[in-house]
Amino acid sequence: MKKHNFCSGPSILPQVVFEQAAQAVLNWNDSGLSILEISHRSQGFVDIVDEAVALVKEHLQLTDDYEVIFLSGGATSQFFMTAMNFLDKEETAAYVDTGIWSAKAIKEAAAFGNISKIASSEDKGFSYIPKSYSVPTDAKYLHLTSNNTIYGTQIHQLPETDVPIIADMSSDIFSRPIEVERYGAIYAGAQKNTGTAGATLVIIRKDMLGKVNRKIPTMLDYTKHIAKNSALNTPPVFPIYVSLLNLRWLKSQGGVPAMKTLSEQKAGALYAEIDRNSCFIGKVAVEDRSLMNITFLLSNPDLNDKFGAACDAAGIVAVKGHRLVGGFRASIYNGMPMESVQVLIEVMQEFEKENG
Amino acid sequence: MKKHNFCSGPSILPQVVFEQAAQAVLNWNDSGLSILEISHRSQGFVDIVDEAVALVKEHLQLTDDYEVIFLSGGATSQFFMTAMNFLDKEETAAYVDTGIWSAKAIKEAAAFGNISKIASSEDKGFSYIPKSYSVPTDAKYLHLTSNNTIYGTQIHQLPETDVPIIADMSSDIFSRPIEVERYGAIYAGAQKNTGTAGATLVIIRKDMLGKVNRKIPTMLDYTKHIAKNSALNTPPVFPIYVSLLNLRWLKSQGGVPAMKTLSEQKAGALYAEIDRNSCFIGKVAVEDRSLMNITFLLSNPDLNDKFGAACDAAGIVAVKGHRLVGGFRASIYNGMPMESVQVLIEVMQEFEKENG
Repeated sequence: MKKHNFCSGPSILPQVVFEQAAQAVLNWNDSGLSILEISHRSQGFVDIVDEAVALVKEHLQLTDDYEVIFLSGGATSQFFMTAMNFLDKEETAAYVDTGIWSAKAIKEAAAFGNISKIASSEDKGFSYIPKSYSVPTDAKYLHLTSNNTIYGTQIHQLPETDVPIIADMSSDIFSRPIEVERYGAIYAGAQKNTGTAGATLVIIRKDMLGKVNRKIPTMLDYTKHIAKNSALNTPPVFPIYVSLLNLRWLKSQGGVPAMKTLSEQKAGALYAEIDRNSCFIGKVAVEDRSLMNITFLLSNPDLNDKFGAACDAAGIVAVKGHRLVGGFRASIYNGMPMESVQVLIEVMQEFEKENG
Repeated sequence: MKKHNFCSGPSILPQVVFEQAAQAVLNWNDSGLSILEISHRSQGFVDIVDEAVALVKEHLQLTDDYEVIFLSGGATSQFFMTAMNFLDKEETAAYVDTGIWSAKAIKEAAAFGNISKIASSEDKGFSYIPKSYSVPTDAKYLHLTSNNTIYGTQIHQLPETDVPIIADMSSDIFSRPIEVERYGAIYAGAQKNTGTAGATLVIIRKDMLGKVNRKIPTMLDYTKHIAKNSALNTPPVFPIYVSLLNLRWLKSQGGVPAMKTLSEQKAGALYAEIDRNSCFIGKVAVEDRSLMNITFLLSNPDLNDKFGAACDAAGIVAVKGHRLVGGFRASIYNGMPMESVQVLIEVMQEFEKENG
């Protein structure tokens, strides 16, 4: 049976990416070798990294002021690496707390400098995005989580500030155009809109580099990775290759603007059904709704298991909400086709007929 | 044309592993999902980690005193993480310098404590393994590089000491039985004998843990990864799965003892040819020759390109020596079949007929 995978990450990728990746595991580029056995020092792999970096720059319209590297360790490693590389002990960075991932970023950064939590939506269970806050002008950077996977909230407008923004864009990068020049750094675990688990995309504006005094282990130093073009040591070859395949697919679809349109269609249809259907309730402030992670509750929580079973029967996978917030969550990243969203909507409509 | 991949890493894996990995990218375990899109919190992935850990323990005959985790960042990240987790600022660790990888380990560890380089083979271009040294009894640990990929040397006998050994076994783990109880920790980038690039295997004796006073970022703290069974954050799912497939293959072949026999046969045949053939010269001390990386020179270096072309013509890939040492290198990890070694030997024999 055809599966509709709404997993929050690792998540669905386009079918063509799966097919090309599988082919490369057997025989990469007709080389007679598997992508799993090629040298990271071979011209073939250098070309893979160069093309992937060029596509990231093209998709996000990055100027030459920005460096692009692929690391490992996930966004979770970037929680401390950003502070380690950008914040001196006596300096202050501003953080906005929009949920668990922000809170982890704050906790890890605190070991390296002064962290000022300038806003939080914890008072309402992170069900909205704080807006009426001001960013201290002397902050080294402002850290934001652009999309909150667990709660289903997303920042739709950046705050007014001249402070460079560092954003965890793990769950919404490449889904909409960004105001590039506002960012000092952007990072994203690959396993949602970039590729598969095992690679981490990091984008850094050059003027952010080389400004801290501490001694940094080689593998944690952005400048060292940049100097070696993401091959300081043996990098995660296959996960980077899958990112390349996915970035190529993105281009074939019309790039980020096309994904914005598609995301608005997919999320729009789902939210419209949630708002219309008497069996379901949206979880977060309407103006802060995520276009990537659509969270909702059943108006009668006693029917949770029944709705889960209805999803199972339709081949719908991983719509259970995060254990910390409960309810349901449909993650509809770039790789999710409208057809699968339509299947979920039909299940919701059938469910209302039987239980509404 | 059939390729014979002698790359030093990422390196050849058994053909069946490539086939199973490709199938899992299309449809993992008949789930209707790609291995690239499954949740790292799913029971399916928990089972993958559990089985891989159990196979590591079985293959190396680890007692319950040892923890096994899969991380990312390669052995290069372990150069500093071992010191960060095991060595306090005022403590001393002993290091044996057998080449570039040892030297990097020494350099990265030096930021965290006192590093005593107790032996080195730099005086002869790292062409042998130092043996007549004593390990200070107050050393917190002794760090060894068990096999030196670049030079083609390997430690065949551990030094006499009661100090726990920390070994970088990136390039010879699972190729021979080890004296488990001698090790405080073992680490290995996966891309040689464990699996493919993107995962890093770390084995730690429990009594090594929790004994340093410094504050460690969460993602760099072994205890945190152990507590979360290698899923502290989203781990490199596919590279870990490839490790599982390869560890299963290893078991099907008779495990580590069978690999020892096979390695002795493969390396024995190649070294015999190098010693017999007037066109070739072995590079390192005979008693320290590696069974994984066979390095050799042409007796007439003017014929280097000609021999390279003869290898190309036979489908032999990546036998060029490391840029720092020149010459040639045949890496014959577990996944390398005897048939491919025989092809290389035949090319060497033909080469002698024409140029000897």
